[in-house]
Amino acid sequence: MKRSLLLILTALLSNLLLSQPAVNQERLQASVTQLAAFGKDASGNPNRVAFSDGDIKGREFVISLMKDAGLEVTIDYAGNIRGKRKGKSATKKPIFFGSHIDMVPQGGNYDGCVGSMGAIEVIKTLGENNLVTDHPLEVIIFSNEEGGLLGSRAISGVLGKEALSVVNSTGHSMVEGLKRIGGDPAKIGEMALPSGSIAAFIELHIEQGGILDKEMVDIGIVVGIVGIKWWDVEVTGFANHAGTTPMDARQDALLAAAQFILAVNKVITGVEGKQVGTVGRISASPGAPNVIPGNVKLSLEIRDLSSEKIKMLFASVREEAEKIASASDTQIRFTPIDANSEPALTDKNIQAAIAEVATKLGLSFRQMQSGAGHDAQDMALIAPAGMIFVPSKAGISHSPKEYTSPEDMANGANVLLHTILLLDRTLK
Amino acid sequence: MKRSLLLILTALLSNLLLSQPAVNQERLQASVTQLAAFGKDASGNPNRVAFSDGDIKGREFVISLMKDAGLEVTIDYAGNIRGKRKGKSATKKPIFFGSHIDMVPQGGNYDGCVGSMGAIEVIKTLGENNLVTDHPLEVIIFSNEEGGLLGSRAISGVLGKEALSVVNSTGHSMVEGLKRIGGDPAKIGEMALPSGSIAAFIELHIEQGGILDKEMVDIGIVVGIVGIKWWDVEVTGFANHAGTTPMDARQDALLAAAQFILAVNKVITGVEGKQVGTVGRISASPGAPNVIPGNVKLSLEIRDLSSEKIKMLFASVREEAEKIASASDTQIRFTPIDANSEPALTDKNIQAAIAEVATKLGLSFRQMQSGAGHDAQDMALIAPAGMIFVPSKAGISHSPKEYTSPEDMANGANVLLHTILLLDRTLK
Repeated sequence: MKRSLLLILTALLSNLLLSQPAVNQERLQASVTQLAAFGKDASGNPNRVAFSDGDIKGREFVISLMKDAGLEVTIDYAGNIRGKRKGKSATKKPIFFGSHIDMVPQGGNYDGCVGSMGAIEVIKTLGENNLVTDHPLEVIIFSNEEGGLLGSRAISGVLGKEALSVVNSTGHSMVEGLKRIGGDPAKIGEMALPSGSIAAFIELHIEQGGILDKEMVDIGIVVGIVGIKWWDVEVTGFANHAGTTPMDARQDALLAAAQFILAVNKVITGVEGKQVGTVGRISASPGAPNVIPGNVKLSLEIRDLSSEKIKMLFASVREEAEKIASASDTQIRFTPIDANSEPALTDKNIQAAIAEVATKLGLSFRQMQSGAGHDAQDMALIAPAGMIFVPSKAGISHSPKEYTSPEDMANGANVLLHTILLLDRTLK
Repeated sequence: MKRSLLLILTALLSNLLLSQPAVNQERLQASVTQLAAFGKDASGNPNRVAFSDGDIKGREFVISLMKDAGLEVTIDYAGNIRGKRKGKSATKKPIFFGSHIDMVPQGGNYDGCVGSMGAIEVIKTLGENNLVTDHPLEVIIFSNEEGGLLGSRAISGVLGKEALSVVNSTGHSMVEGLKRIGGDPAKIGEMALPSGSIAAFIELHIEQGGILDKEMVDIGIVVGIVGIKWWDVEVTGFANHAGTTPMDARQDALLAAAQFILAVNKVITGVEGKQVGTVGRISASPGAPNVIPGNVKLSLEIRDLSSEKIKMLFASVREEAEKIASASDTQIRFTPIDANSEPALTDKNIQAAIAEVATKLGLSFRQMQSGAGHDAQDMALIAPAGMIFVPSKAGISHSPKEYTSPEDMANGANVLLHTILLLDRTLK
């Protein structure tokens, strides 16, 4: 008994030592709440889409926080906000960490924001504790994550020129949007960082799924991020009068589109695995109750950890679409969208570091895949990358009902802080 | 042989006499072409939606034509353009005829326009031939036919107050729109004409279906106009992240909406008859490729000559919707829209007059129902009503490809002219 008591005391003491320094939970929560004030739609729902006025105001707030934390802040050609903190060593490569603050339309206040505010909180905590790492540190707030990982793709050198003409829901193209946020689209090709120039990249993020919340686990250690493929789908029929065109003489593009939506669901759920497929956007033209739609535009998204599986699933969707088009006397055309991402695996060394830190902080953890795309997947192309997940209440995300508790946010930020300190000691 | 030759000669002579006066085909065609210049969308497609700038310009053109034809023009509280021509009798009731010039979005240049320009051409022809009827005549160009028969419902006293708050694709409510075109929404309840105050109403219109064109028949004599019911349909699911929400944990409102669209088609085509059912409008919210739609709004329209059948079909659609909602963990809600119309039968006396005139003019004809709604159905509530159809090429309507030949337009206008003259002689 005496020996085991001693062991427990030793463990507690070790945890206490390791848990110092610790982030300020109240301050972290306050910064997430303050950021949430920027970018709302007419109904008061979060709507900080990249390049919107709300995004611009939110970025100004973030820049002020970063400067206040002592970071040297610049905006790069891709509109990423980058905050540098010097290290003791003149030769060591920097450790990058951060996330994004842009949202999907009617999104939530935690996706991206927890990791962004958590990264700044880590810097503030280091400063308050007079801690200077050997490696230089760099906080990065990526631009337009939700609209195709714009900032991280530019940094990792995989951004195609065609991506710059994409228009998001603000009505701005990427070119126009980048100019609005201080980027320089003409020079975006010059900014890629060479592979191996960064010691590590770590992103704290909410899970956006319901596993951690349901299993009551504190921390998710991400082993891989699914690949994402997008297509624009266009169904062409023939617009005609809804009263005078008999049911058997119609080329109803919306009826064919409905069959397509069901076919996507059938293909995706028809094979084993964690793959997902979604039709999230639809518009029918001309769009009047008394006109048979002649044209329907939809989006198609497929995600999986295997590129091969995505290809196989899309081939099946395409085959089903051809059958539908043929039977309904319509045409169905697919256009790949350059907002795709390949599946990405995280660095095993960083996974182990996160697990060691979580253990020492007394936090429960599990390994998991990320069904969501993240800037970390692009950073993984040029650096060892890792991701720390914290629970999302009921797994709700991309919704105003998104929620992560102040405790969980602080747990994540503390794991981020101590993973950085551990990697600073162990990485070359 | 001699006797039969005499009979043929007599018939020819009778036709020649009866076909005088005749409308000016070139002038009629020119006025339809001139009207088509007003109200186009960015792609140059016809888009003269009621209350749009194009509608206002088109109405100004029509008013100038009517004044030029000698009509005394006024705008009534519902924005109908009304052109009076005095008759010889001081006691006889007026004969009304006319149509509309507003369109569905991306509509065609013949729907409504042929009947409107044909009515004015009839007045011009009477004037040129110095013909004055016993009955007073009134050309009426109804307001906002496509958006719920606004003008004719006001005249027949069946326009509900709730219809005035409906907003059309121009973004204007009926109240705002009426003010734009010179109506007075506050007084719209005072303008209904008492039943029996009009001797007859006749509307010339393109068929908007393919029967006359396919069968190469010149004139359609409408025996009845289908009833039309509209509903707004709202599917409520739950918006969530498309990457992190497993397929079996989704409440995808668009997937349920797709099932609903197929169910409508199945119910409508599942029973014998000429009924039609259409979903023409759809929107999904939030509407991003990477978010599962939480809310979908659709339109539902059902048409048939029998009100009872429409009720029965809607009950089946509703039943199917309940099953879909239950299986997909969504809610499906129906809201009836006040743009409904009851089935209407035309006057047998006017049908016979049209048949007599067509025979004498040497035009082929057949009886038919109208799958499209028309202002004539509201006029049938307060007066004996009739409709004359002319062929639509390939049955295409509510589309920029809508077409009726100059000969067919002139045939229709001549039948209209002589039907008015015949009724003028035979009606009290």
